[in-house]
Amino acid sequence: MIKSGDRVLVLTDDDSRYLITLKEGGIFGTHLGNILHEEIIGKEYGDVIKIGRSLAYLLKPGIVDHIFTLNRRTQIVYPKDMGFIILMLDIKDGDLVIECGAGSGSMTGAFARFVGPNGRVVSYERREKFMERARENVSRLGLEKRVTFKLKDIEEGIDETNADAFFLDIPEPVPHLKNVLNSLKGGGRFCVLCPTTNQVQDVLEALKELGAVDVEVWEIFVRKMKTNPKRFRPEDRMVGHTAYLIFGVKVSRGGEIG
Amino acid sequence: MIKSGDRVLVLTDDDSRYLITLKEGGIFGTHLGNILHEEIIGKEYGDVIKIGRSLAYLLKPGIVDHIFTLNRRTQIVYPKDMGFIILMLDIKDGDLVIECGAGSGSMTGAFARFVGPNGRVVSYERREKFMERARENVSRLGLEKRVTFKLKDIEEGIDETNADAFFLDIPEPVPHLKNVLNSLKGGGRFCVLCPTTNQVQDVLEALKELGAVDVEVWEIFVRKMKTNPKRFRPEDRMVGHTAYLIFGVKVSRGGEIG
Amino acid sequence: MIKSGDRVLVLTDDDSRYLITLKEGGIFGTHLGNILHEEIIGKEYGDVIKIGRSLAYLLKPGIVDHIFTLNRRTQIVYPKDMGFIILMLDIKDGDLVIECGAGSGSMTGAFARFVGPNGRVVSYERREKFMERARENVSRLGLEKRVTFKLKDIEEGIDETNADAFFLDIPEPVPHLKNVLNSLKGGGRFCVLCPTTNQVQDVLEALKELGAVDVEVWEIFVRKMKTNPKRFRPEDRMVGHTAYLIFGVKVSRGGEIG
Amino acid sequence: MIKSGDRVLVLTDDDSRYLITLKEGGIFGTHLGNILHEEIIGKEYGDVIKIGRSLAYLLKPGIVDHIFTLNRRTQIVYPKDMGFIILMLDIKDGDLVIECGAGSGSMTGAFARFVGPNGRVVSYERREKFMERARENVSRLGLEKRVTFKLKDIEEGIDETNADAFFLDIPEPVPHLKNVLNSLKGGGRFCVLCPTTNQVQDVLEALKELGAVDVEVWEIFVRKMKTNPKRFRPEDRMVGHTAYLIFGVKVSRGGEIG
Repeated sequence: MIKSGDRVLVLTDDDSRYLITLKEGGIFGTHLGNILHEEIIGKEYGDVIKIGRSLAYLLKPGIVDHIFTLNRRTQIVYPKDMGFIILMLDIKDGDLVIECGAGSGSMTGAFARFVGPNGRVVSYERREKFMERARENVSRLGLEKRVTFKLKDIEEGIDETNADAFFLDIPEPVPHLKNVLNSLKGGGRFCVLCPTTNQVQDVLEALKELGAVDVEVWEIFVRKMKTNPKRFRPEDRMVGHTAYLIFGVKVSRGGEIG
Repeated sequence: MIKSGDRVLVLTDDDSRYLITLKEGGIFGTHLGNILHEEIIGKEYGDVIKIGRSLAYLLKPGIVDHIFTLNRRTQIVYPKDMGFIILMLDIKDGDLVIECGAGSGSMTGAFARFVGPNGRVVSYERREKFMERARENVSRLGLEKRVTFKLKDIEEGIDETNADAFFLDIPEPVPHLKNVLNSLKGGGRFCVLCPTTNQVQDVLEALKELGAVDVEVWEIFVRKMKTNPKRFRPEDRMVGHTAYLIFGVKVSRGGEIG
Repeated sequence: MIKSGDRVLVLTDDDSRYLITLKEGGIFGTHLGNILHEEIIGKEYGDVIKIGRSLAYLLKPGIVDHIFTLNRRTQIVYPKDMGFIILMLDIKDGDLVIECGAGSGSMTGAFARFVGPNGRVVSYERREKFMERARENVSRLGLEKRVTFKLKDIEEGIDETNADAFFLDIPEPVPHLKNVLNSLKGGGRFCVLCPTTNQVQDVLEALKELGAVDVEVWEIFVRKMKTNPKRFRPEDRMVGHTAYLIFGVKVSRGGEIG
Repeated sequence: MIKSGDRVLVLTDDDSRYLITLKEGGIFGTHLGNILHEEIIGKEYGDVIKIGRSLAYLLKPGIVDHIFTLNRRTQIVYPKDMGFIILMLDIKDGDLVIECGAGSGSMTGAFARFVGPNGRVVSYERREKFMERARENVSRLGLEKRVTFKLKDIEEGIDETNADAFFLDIPEPVPHLKNVLNSLKGGGRFCVLCPTTNQVQDVLEALKELGAVDVEVWEIFVRKMKTNPKRFRPEDRMVGHTAYLIFGVKVSRGGEIG
């Protein structure tokens, strides 16, 4: 049963989407008319309400809805990349995952979800406002207890040394790769996200010297299709680029890396 | 510490990959020479061994290695699709997920991983050999306790009625869509995987009549890049198609569907 | 030397593009200030002029500039598809090419260019306004003498019987395929442009019955890259779809087709 | 009428393709049995012959068939790129086009075709064997009279100074860009083909200094679809990469460039 305080995704019959945090006495304006929060409280997910003469559906926002409605200042990691990263980093329940920076907290939330109740995410971010925003965004998923936010530049070092996975998404990744590898346990996996080919080249060069193995670079495209069954066809426009994804594994090589 | 019975991914310096299940006294032949299992047992993941004069790295096989080394008879779901499906179906710990059919168990394993220790996967498969193979493949991930395999054609009905998510990957999906929707709870999400546009059109037509909402169709491409930092460029060949992914949400519309 | 009556593409230093048809005494307004046509007349292509304090380059508009500045009411054929069509239809000097409909005349102009001075394009169009617009657009390329426009529905038949190539771009292609094949000489090539998969399926079905050979279907994507050499990367957005391109060859099979 | 000396594409009913140069008394072996050249001589393009019990179609090889059956030692330019290059370089009848190197002569042939009987192609190639092979390949299209082959390294300079278009496809393009621009007339267009991002970055850097305008970089993908109308879907594999295409225009900037 949907109750006050819950976040509900209202999908109208003409495919508009509204994300509402319910409170008693609340009113929410849509292009079809107002919704009284009370009309929603007490209903079940999947139920139908009326806005004026139109129908609207009460859905539970999923992680993808969450990503696209983040309170954000920075680029987000798109679902197309996020799912692939989760698999390639082999994220699973109980893992210790480190990320830097927190950005808007989109990957933070995904990691927090997939490490499960016994896992842990440590998120390094040197800008306090970003950290707070990321924390708030993770809270919306109800997963803030799984995340430790650290207001710190990783140039000063990374406290952890036995991480299962590391996700690095910062403007200048190269100087920090050695620290990233040292924070991982043997066989630990990392992902570096780079928008430009120049950066990818520099990261690849550095990873070679640092002795990372199983290094792969991937690019992911998604294309949405129109859903008219009589006129099935792709949408006219698509996302052309978000970032290149670099993956690799840390190995020991008999002690210190680098 | 790596021990007898573990599965180890041995990555050679020239990028060959061998997946070995360790047993005492075992010998494994590679293109570089033999490996005695004893050389591996007792080492740590990330450690380096020698095969002849070459180096090789001991890695823990991840879910992606698992997918590509499945004992299989059927098409697998590729990582590019798998990660996106996990996100779009909003899979999280504690979920009840139903799939049909089991195929080679690649999605079964992924669902089992991401529903966590408190979740449950029910996998319907009407061909016993496939079911056993899928079960065996999930066992390799150590996740068989999270999965109930049912040797049953879903034409005879689906036992569950309150699923969080349904994944349908069978040759003729249309006749089963009503059953799929009835097995989901309100707001539950489903994915239908279709290789051909004809099928997508038929599924979209059927979903319209059944009143599913938030229906989307996606196609996902991945491109691997070569990792020479001095000559960075995409690989010459890529996967052109696996399947179209249809997603949607079940809503009540005041009772029975259809 | 650029003279009155010529069409000039003015490219400003900040990458705005203006297409100007020159006349004595003319003035053209841009975001950087006015250009007197007299400042351009008498210059050479490749020369630089000043607009206020900014530089601007005088370029000869190419066929791609032409396509994107067409006076148009309908969808155009994009360069990505156009070049591929020209090659797959094996267009060369001296060819007789038929198209239906004229649309905005974008393909008409391309065909007119590549059949050369000894070739001929016949363009069927049943809507007079479209025909006139296509004629005007081809005139801008100076190629109107190579094209015969016919105001006629091809349902009433196609006058030619010995065409080298046929380009069919109409909303309902299937009923006209027999006529298309009958207008081609033996070994003649055709292209049918279809935005939806439903149409492609219907056309493929019909072509099978009509005995066309070497039938292929292609889809073409182009991605533009950003040109900052320090931050090389693809543009964020790209065209996701224009149309599927169906190609085939007409063979005799001992007489009448169909 | 097909005669001795002609090149014929024989397409069998099971989609095998054989390119035959006919001579009296010739015999050609196929997987379906032998074809006597005499069975073909005297027939028309589009006619059907029998090979054993199977049907085969007599087609006139097009430029795309020509590309894929080139006698070659080097990478060819694929149709997907070729058509786009022809449009972006604004190739038309009467043009003077320079290319370097000749490679296998695939672009040479395309340029020769599209400059028409009054145009001219100059092809620089420093390796004699490659030059002879390219010449032979252009001859197969019957277009050798439109092409001047020059056995010369363009480091020693380019003889022409008034070219409409330049196509540069060599391993180290950067040192030659100044020469390329000097060989073009004002407003002349060029294309540089680069397989790697490192090269693209270097070329972009150099073009900036040389003052080229309207610089664009494109990447082109094509995907072939399977043609079963009941099971319409893309092919499983596609070409992932050939090269990045860099385009630009030469402007005067008041005299010498560079």
